[in-house]
Amino acid sequence: MINKEELLQKIPKLLDELKNKNPLTHCITNFVTVNDCANAVLAIGASPIMSEDIEEVAEVVSISDALVINIGKLSHEQVEAMKVSSAQANKINTPVILDPVGVGISQLRNKVTLELIENYKLTAIRGNITEIKTIAKLTGIISESNTAKGVDVSESDIITKDNLNENAKIISKLAANLDTVILASGPIDILSDGETTIAIDNGDEMMPQITGSGCMLSSIVGSCIGATNPLEGTLLAALLMTIAGEKARAKVDNENAGTGSFRAYLIDYLYKLDGQTLINKSNIEIL
Amino acid sequence: MINKEELLQKIPKLLDELKNKNPLTHCITNFVTVNDCANAVLAIGASPIMSEDIEEVAEVVSISDALVINIGKLSHEQVEAMKVSSAQANKINTPVILDPVGVGISQLRNKVTLELIENYKLTAIRGNITEIKTIAKLTGIISESNTAKGVDVSESDIITKDNLNENAKIISKLAANLDTVILASGPIDILSDGETTIAIDNGDEMMPQITGSGCMLSSIVGSCIGATNPLEGTLLAALLMTIAGEKARAKVDNENAGTGSFRAYLIDYLYKLDGQTLINKSNIEIL
Amino acid sequence: MINKEELLQKIPKLLDELKNKNPLTHCITNFVTVNDCANAVLAIGASPIMSEDIEEVAEVVSISDALVINIGKLSHEQVEAMKVSSAQANKINTPVILDPVGVGISQLRNKVTLELIENYKLTAIRGNITEIKTIAKLTGIISESNTAKGVDVSESDIITKDNLNENAKIISKLAANLDTVILASGPIDILSDGETTIAIDNGDEMMPQITGSGCMLSSIVGSCIGATNPLEGTLLAALLMTIAGEKARAKVDNENAGTGSFRAYLIDYLYKLDGQTLINKSNIEIL
Repeated sequence: MINKEELLQKIPKLLDELKNKNPLTHCITNFVTVNDCANAVLAIGASPIMSEDIEEVAEVVSISDALVINIGKLSHEQVEAMKVSSAQANKINTPVILDPVGVGISQLRNKVTLELIENYKLTAIRGNITEIKTIAKLTGIISESNTAKGVDVSESDIITKDNLNENAKIISKLAANLDTVILASGPIDILSDGETTIAIDNGDEMMPQITGSGCMLSSIVGSCIGATNPLEGTLLAALLMTIAGEKARAKVDNENAGTGSFRAYLIDYLYKLDGQTLINKSNIEIL
Repeated sequence: MINKEELLQKIPKLLDELKNKNPLTHCITNFVTVNDCANAVLAIGASPIMSEDIEEVAEVVSISDALVINIGKLSHEQVEAMKVSSAQANKINTPVILDPVGVGISQLRNKVTLELIENYKLTAIRGNITEIKTIAKLTGIISESNTAKGVDVSESDIITKDNLNENAKIISKLAANLDTVILASGPIDILSDGETTIAIDNGDEMMPQITGSGCMLSSIVGSCIGATNPLEGTLLAALLMTIAGEKARAKVDNENAGTGSFRAYLIDYLYKLDGQTLINKSNIEIL
Repeated sequence: MINKEELLQKIPKLLDELKNKNPLTHCITNFVTVNDCANAVLAIGASPIMSEDIEEVAEVVSISDALVINIGKLSHEQVEAMKVSSAQANKINTPVILDPVGVGISQLRNKVTLELIENYKLTAIRGNITEIKTIAKLTGIISESNTAKGVDVSESDIITKDNLNENAKIISKLAANLDTVILASGPIDILSDGETTIAIDNGDEMMPQITGSGCMLSSIVGSCIGATNPLEGTLLAALLMTIAGEKARAKVDNENAGTGSFRAYLIDYLYKLDGQTLINKSNIEIL
């Protein structure tokens, strides 16, 4: 059984490993937030490469430390590139991280998500709680799921203290069944590898009021796993993003600013956060 | 005849309707400013979804409150997606908003714009004055139009107090002929549904010095119409954008900053503006 | 032989020519940084147009003052558009600027880069030192080059005072052989047209910690050449970008901010810099 204090004490070392390795993070992602993803990866000390031409993706995977695939904006060509890249990554044991953006809003997204889950070894899946529960339904773990409204969290899915254990069980079971690490984002995040399940009660409600919070998090999950290991790397990424969000919000409030400034400050704090601050601000619970 | 004071007094209620409805705004738009559009839609309290794969767009339209189509970056696939989406939106009476970016600079853009105008019911068209006058020429409302220079307003087209009435007549006639609401942007904006024509003398000259001011405005026109009604919704969107621009510019001058900070502050004020401020700062005239 | 002081004294006049001409800058570029490129072009007083549909690119080239082609995100369609555009630009003597992003990381990028170099007259090539040395290798100027790591500069390629002359010789020879202006970026930039070679020791280490510094520079090289001439225009663009970077970094440090704010401030200073500040802050040496 992992001890919470021991886990937190590892955070500074994990952050050092990230900065020292400067992992090349290959992202196949959507055109809405791709710039934010590149800047987030750079801010934490990793190096992004956004490549999706089918003629070169396998070569790019071969020099990368992690592959992040994000289905926010699908196209036939991009899905083909995701498959070729994932196959190559699996072949050489490079971690693959999936962000199933908007799964549940169309048959196409459901189909693509299932194809990726069934045919490739995914090291981690990072989505909002509605997306994760949609996957649980699509794979038969649970029988019901709400209709997704766009790409945001459905209100009935929001994780609260009351339904935390119930949601944690679903996510843990899904992680075990798919043999992957899952990070489900919401006001409270749940992280599980099927054995260890952690609730992360950090972050700020302004995060979903900018586009890209989720995509950025998935990208840096890739960087952090590429430099460390799946469960701890995902925890590191989640703490970086949510605590950067808290600090950015405090600065916004202090300046009476809004979401445009929040977006810049979020990257500022991803760049600035150190290991001790992550320990001090973290609010996690091992379930 | 609409009374100006009565119209302005409705603004806070319209803004409340927008925030309460949180309208899902489906944008098929260009890759240059798509991130700005998503953030603008979020900032005013709506929810964006950027989807353009032809396999899923009809499904996405079906769950959305408005469809915004922006021809800033054309491709065959995107144009096909725009047609399928518009047909579906027309079928279920979801409002369609067109931003004819750069119409006039190429035969392709002229052709696509005409196809969209002729084959689908458009609830609103939002473009700069050069683009709107190009459409007036293409549809035979006026006989001459300047050659568009890139995607910006031609100098000879700029709406001033001297040519305001002349331009208002063209725009009103175009709106009546196309049975749509038109918002033509420039230093002075003109809004018309063919019956009521309104001049909006708000905004700041720094707005066209960043990319995306126009695209963001078109996107939030979609959100506002999706939550209210075509004429008043478009007015609300125009006031939100132009008054946010004025306030962002004042902050930039106060801090001796530039266009990079302006862009962040513009989103800040889209997020922060309340109904009373919109009334106080508005400078509109019913023609 | 060009005299350094005479060259610097020309800078304010060149900047005036840029602002007065407001050159229309046609960019075919990658979706990661396209928004940054458009904002950078606008900030210095030029006008961007991002068009890549093969049906319209030749028309867009015909109204533009410069064409910038950036291979950061390749696709078959985009490469075809680059070829059609370059052919049209060559035909009407519009300058063509190439940014060979990531050349060296895949066979595809090497092939595309060589095709563009061999088949079209390029007015300037702007890349990081690793990319430029990869081109020198691909074209037989030098026999060895490091393996590129992603899209960033390889450590062994970094230009320092110790290897400055050696690198300058390679770049000068490459510029002469390809009959083009080359700007190789790094901590020290080297600019050469094959006859005159200039070292530019400006800029800040935070510049590669955001995405888009290089792409933005290539885009404004296009604007500056389009308004002036190849060698001096490229120098103007390099001074604008690197000195804006220095000033943005100073503001970031003063505010204890990070890379998110840096990105906004970089655009702020591109917008604000005047000719006298460029002279005062410039640190160039004619080799």
